[in-house]
Amino acid sequence: MPNQYVAKSRRLRSTIYSSRIENQGVTSYTIYNHMLLPAGFEGSLEETYNHLKNHVQIWDVAAERQIEIKGKDAYQLVQLMTCRDLSKTKEGKCYYCPIIDENGGMINDPVVLKFNNEKWWISIADSDVMLFAKGLAIGKNLEVSISEPDVNIMAVQGPKAFNLLEKIFGKEILDLKFYNFKYFNFKNSKHLIAKSGWSKQGGVEIYVEDAKSGLELYDLLFEEGKEFNVKPGCPHLIERIESALLSYGNDMDINDNPLECGLDKFVHLDNNIEFLGKDKLIKIKENGIEKKLMGVKIDIDNINLRSSINLTINNSVIGEIRSAVYSPTFNKVIGIAMINKPYFLSKDKFDIIIDSKKYTGEICDIPFV
Amino acid sequence: MPNQYVAKSRRLRSTIYSSRIENQGVTSYTIYNHMLLPAGFEGSLEETYNHLKNHVQIWDVAAERQIEIKGKDAYQLVQLMTCRDLSKTKEGKCYYCPIIDENGGMINDPVVLKFNNEKWWISIADSDVMLFAKGLAIGKNLEVSISEPDVNIMAVQGPKAFNLLEKIFGKEILDLKFYNFKYFNFKNSKHLIAKSGWSKQGGVEIYVEDAKSGLELYDLLFEEGKEFNVKPGCPHLIERIESALLSYGNDMDINDNPLECGLDKFVHLDNNIEFLGKDKLIKIKENGIEKKLMGVKIDIDNINLRSSINLTINNSVIGEIRSAVYSPTFNKVIGIAMINKPYFLSKDKFDIIIDSKKYTGEICDIPFV
Repeated sequence: MPNQYVAKSRRLRSTIYSSRIENQGVTSYTIYNHMLLPAGFEGSLEETYNHLKNHVQIWDVAAERQIEIKGKDAYQLVQLMTCRDLSKTKEGKCYYCPIIDENGGMINDPVVLKFNNEKWWISIADSDVMLFAKGLAIGKNLEVSISEPDVNIMAVQGPKAFNLLEKIFGKEILDLKFYNFKYFNFKNSKHLIAKSGWSKQGGVEIYVEDAKSGLELYDLLFEEGKEFNVKPGCPHLIERIESALLSYGNDMDINDNPLECGLDKFVHLDNNIEFLGKDKLIKIKENGIEKKLMGVKIDIDNINLRSSINLTINNSVIGEIRSAVYSPTFNKVIGIAMINKPYFLSKDKFDIIIDSKKYTGEICDIPFV
Repeated sequence: MPNQYVAKSRRLRSTIYSSRIENQGVTSYTIYNHMLLPAGFEGSLEETYNHLKNHVQIWDVAAERQIEIKGKDAYQLVQLMTCRDLSKTKEGKCYYCPIIDENGGMINDPVVLKFNNEKWWISIADSDVMLFAKGLAIGKNLEVSISEPDVNIMAVQGPKAFNLLEKIFGKEILDLKFYNFKYFNFKNSKHLIAKSGWSKQGGVEIYVEDAKSGLELYDLLFEEGKEFNVKPGCPHLIERIESALLSYGNDMDINDNPLECGLDKFVHLDNNIEFLGKDKLIKIKENGIEKKLMGVKIDIDNINLRSSINLTINNSVIGEIRSAVYSPTFNKVIGIAMINKPYFLSKDKFDIIIDSKKYTGEICDIPFV
């Protein structure tokens, strides 16, 4: 199949970095929250993967939009949307929170930033959480204001990220703890920096509110990063699957609940807090889940997955693979698959048909080992 | 600037027609409701435009997703979301309805299909209306079920559309009135067909629920359409701007209200019906709007707009152009722009800077004449 170009328009919003990355060799985009998110740069997928695992990259992840919930009832609204208990959360910390609907179906899986009880940012995956929050707030007459501030995140990712960051922000940045955030000074501006990011190679995400200063910082990171072999990059298919970082819309959607997605440690049912879908999740937990996200390994050296593909045993469907990539680490294709009961327990071998040819694969736990 | 490819994945959902149109020469995609929407086919933009205006095209517009609202309170919920009075609506009819939030800001501008008071389809533009509807229904405890059924629309558009449709569905299809819908038999299946579509060249939209039958129909339309010079196509930038068909996300968004978008005839304030943002819209109407969507004409023969560009008079910003294309009919660039008060009344000439060069343009009414 041939490739198709992205037809650009105002509706597929550019970020403050778009013109820079287009000069720096971005080759493909995906669309995320109605915005351009770079998906590939010059060089093979394995070359950019090796670079990310050995050096440092700057990513335009402005498409990771912020939904700001402010006001007297802000805490109540954020808690209403997630099955994670937020009652003991601390200011200046980040929390991975499944957002679910009244049936327990996954609506999003953002990182939530707590400024204080009356101000939160929901750093969203690809769905219009703002509309869900607005609907709930209007329907329940909550005293909140809900907006999407123009925050353009750039991520600094890779094992040399802190070598680079220290040159610009000083030793103070080295004390930042995982999933904490803090404002750091840069020239006459300040930038919220969180120790987080959509890779397991270490680094930070810089939540740029002041675009002019942010672009100066972007340019300086490339200037100062030369000695660390800095390159532009983006969330990386191989790295994220090898690290089992789930992707909303790819690996899970509204038809899956967080227990099926293996997010049990973010599902808090034994408490008095009120959130949507709680009764449903309690029942599901009692009865046991009917399907579960698992890893799969297939002995082939290439795959180009653009929609889910059924997995079968003796011609019966036992699940579907939703994301997959050739892994240089495992020297085969690995993927994320939703596997039906009881097959996610038994881990039998399965068949998969790709381009009319049948292959065999095996179910495994995630993270991959 | 170079072009970038679409990085395909399950999250950017394929339609039931995707493999067909990729064999038929689709060259670019946009993403719409998390789904692939074709944006260009082989041939120049003017060639495909001339074809649409003279023959018949089949469009994969499955990305125009349906949000189904069913149940006792379905009418109440749909009315709550739109400023258009739905109290006198009829079964089997389509209604263009601005969906607005509590401030009167545009959330979407769908065509709403009324099956009966307890079943509606909202045929949405590009935003997650389902999440807004769910939030409202949960918050207000409404008795409704809300879902996105897997309906894959194909549009048949162009002046020869009904010649082709008559060959397959018989004379009955000629009696279908504009913005009415009805089920039509095709072999052993039936398909909802509405006399509608996102062009002014005439035709229908076929709401395919039975994928297998829909694909047989798709293939037959090409087979039977040979004598009418049928081709695959998609919503067309030149045709839609010349026809002043607004595009949500391009021409308007949540920061604009329907009065600013010139949608006055769908804003019904003198009644007892309850909808979100009504008090705000009443005030806005009393005070007069601060900005308005207008047409613009610029004396150049090419433009490639990917985000809005400011329009100025004596270096003061008087508005921004949001969509634009070279029009073969007007022999210049025409576009849709949001123009500040009082300039949308005075229609002065303005300056615009494109690729560092200054040009002059003029404000005009839409539709363009």
